Formats: sequence, structure tokens, C-alpha cells
Amino acid sequence: MSQVFRQHVEKFIKISDDQFEEIIVFFDTKFVAKKENLLEEGQVCKRHFFVLEGLLRKFYINEKGIEQTVEFAIETWWITDNIAYEHKLRTEFYIQAVERSAILYITQENQEKLLAAHPVMERYFRFVYQRAYAAAQMRVKYLFSLSKEEFYYELVRKHPEFVQRVPQYLIASFLGFTPEYLSEIRKKVFPK
Amino acid sequence: MSQVFRQHVEKFIKISDDQFEEIIVFFDTKFVAKKENLLEEGQVCKRHFFVLEGLLRKFYINEKGIEQTVEFAIETWWITDNIAYEHKLRTEFYIQAVERSAILYITQENQEKLLAAHPVMERYFRFVYQRAYAAAQMRVKYLFSLSKEEFYYELVRKHPEFVQRVPQYLIASFLGFTPEYLSEIRKKVFPK
Repeated sequence: MSQVFRQHVEKFIKISDDQFEEIIVFFDTKFVAKKENLLEEGQVCKRHFFVLEGLLRKFYINEKGIEQTVEFAIETWWITDNIAYEHKLRTEFYIQAVERSAILYITQENQEKLLAAHPVMERYFRFVYQRAYAAAQMRVKYLFSLSKEEFYYELVRKHPEFVQRVPQYLIASFLGFTPEYLSEIRKKVFPK
Repeated sequence: MSQVFRQHVEKFIKISDDQFEEIIVFFDTKFVAKKENLLEEGQVCKRHFFVLEGLLRKFYINEKGIEQTVEFAIETWWITDNIAYEHKLRTEFYIQAVERSAILYITQENQEKLLAAHPVMERYFRFVYQRAYAAAQMRVKYLFSLSKEEFYYELVRKHPEFVQRVPQYLIASFLGFTPEYLSEIRKKVFPK
């Protein structure tokens, strides 16, 4: 299972078997059931989650009491509330399993110890954040330049497997659609 | 001038005078006049810019031919088109000086050489991207949860010096307002 993580690390840095054995002890694994929460509003955010298998989402509850999904994480994606995690603050977010998932995670304390003991992992995390930041910038550009409908078409074009895998009411929440409106658009994209 | 950069680096890592001297040779400095472009649409994005003094903005030209500002960078902020920079692609963006500015920059090739020669800088850039990513996530949350008007109030509350410093037509472009509408809101926030 940790091979998924090792392969991801080796996309960015070279490490020996022995070094990987020393690195992996800083992490824990956890299996979560569908709809189980890994993080809840009001908790201090202590953990950074890496998806080995499955699918997570991050959401907050808006002033109307509705869950607003802001982010998904599939295999090999990291997810947390990054500001709360870095500064050990209470979070406004929930992180929840959309499917039964296998998760690798590290605590903030362990991440600091890992980086002190294995500075080569700074390079790994530099790439992780660099790519996540670039993706978030692209998302901001889409939020400016595309209508919600165009953004959905872009999702279908770039990540068809993702659109098929995620329950439609969550895609609707992510895009700020009603499920009924998304259903209308879907009929155009995936005619029977 | 490079002391601004050194102080920023030392927020995250400890380096000696000698080491800083070795590090700084990988960077160049550039003074840009107001409205001068550091990057233009269609160019391969080869440089990563750090603001020593002044103010930059990033924008693209939308299908109506209008400049849409997506990002600002003030002192000690890094700015580039990150996807294009990492993968040496042509950019869709412009990066332009809003004020006469002093810029430190590094090329993608030099950044790789710097990180190979001084791996301690991986930690510095890890923090740079980590914080930039966290800020971008917060921005995505605002784009979901706040109206444009509320987002403006949030800007005024958190960054009053920024709102006073940036020309109002650029703040309007950033928020997707017409300048006239922003002027109406400003009268409420800053009554004479």
C-alpha cells in the first residue's frame, strides 16, 4: 500500500530502500468508511492526508447551513486545511471520505521531524506545494474566465474519469449548481 | 537591496554571510518602469519574480479584449505563471509593474542549479509555495462564500494599505466590478 506513496516520492527524488524504510515510520495509515470525517469544523488541524486509494472532499457549511465542497483529492493528492495545519489553528472545514478510502497521513510535528532528519524530503514537499499552487492558480483563472457551465465542460474534457466517479450532487455542490441544473447540462454532454 | 531578499530567506532558514554570497549569484535584479511588462502573452515563461520594492500584477486579456487582473504581488511576494514556468511553456498571462519596481528574479535553469548546489534552499522554496498555496486556497473559499462586495470589505479590513495603494481601476478589474460600481462602494467604506 505504501508503494503508492513511494512511487509518488520517486517522481521527484531518488531514495534507497533503506531510506524509504526510515522515512515511512513518520507516517500512519488509516482506512475510512464512506462519509466518515477525517477533520471536522472546530478541531485543531494536525494532519496532512495523502490518498493511497479512494476519494476525499473538503467542504464547509455555509451560512444557509449547506455543505459547500471546495476541493477533492483522489489518489496521490495531498489534502488538508493548509493555513490551519501550518499554524496549528482550529479549522472551518470538514474533510470527508466520498468513497471508502485508504489514507496515509503525517502530523505537523512528525513532518517537522521528518524534514529535519531527511532534508531530501524538503524537495519532495516543495514539488507537492508547487504543483498544488499552480493548480489553484489555474482554478482561480477558471473562476474568473469560465461560466459554471463552461467549467463543467472543462472538467469533463480534462478529467472524464473524475466526473464519472464523483456523485453528481457533489459535483453540483462543487460548481455551485443545483443538482437539477447539473442534470440538465449532463443530458447535453452525455446524451443517451 | 538584496537585504530585503536575505531577510525573507532568513524567516525560514539560517544561512551564513558566505553562503548568502554564493546563493545570490544565481539571481539577477531589474528595475522596471510603471506599466512595463516583465512577461507577455505568447512568451515562454522562464523567470520567477520576487518584489524587492514596488508592485506587480498578473493579468490576461479576456475574449472581450479586456485586461482581467488575477493576482498582485507586493514586497517579498513571488510571482510568475507557475505552470508555464515549471514546464517551460508559453504563457497566457502578462506580468506588469503597477508602480516603478525593483525586482529580483531567477530563471528556471538557475533555480534548478541553485537547488542542486544549495539544497537548503529547497526548504525556503517549500515554505514559499506552501504559503502561496494556502493563500490561494483561502482565495478560492472567498470566491465561493463572499459576494464581490463582501470580498472588497474583506480586502479593506485585512489589507487597508494595499487598497489605498493600488489604483482603483485595477482593484475593480481584480474584483470583476466596473470602476463606477467600485466608486459607489468606496463612498460607503470611506465616507468623506
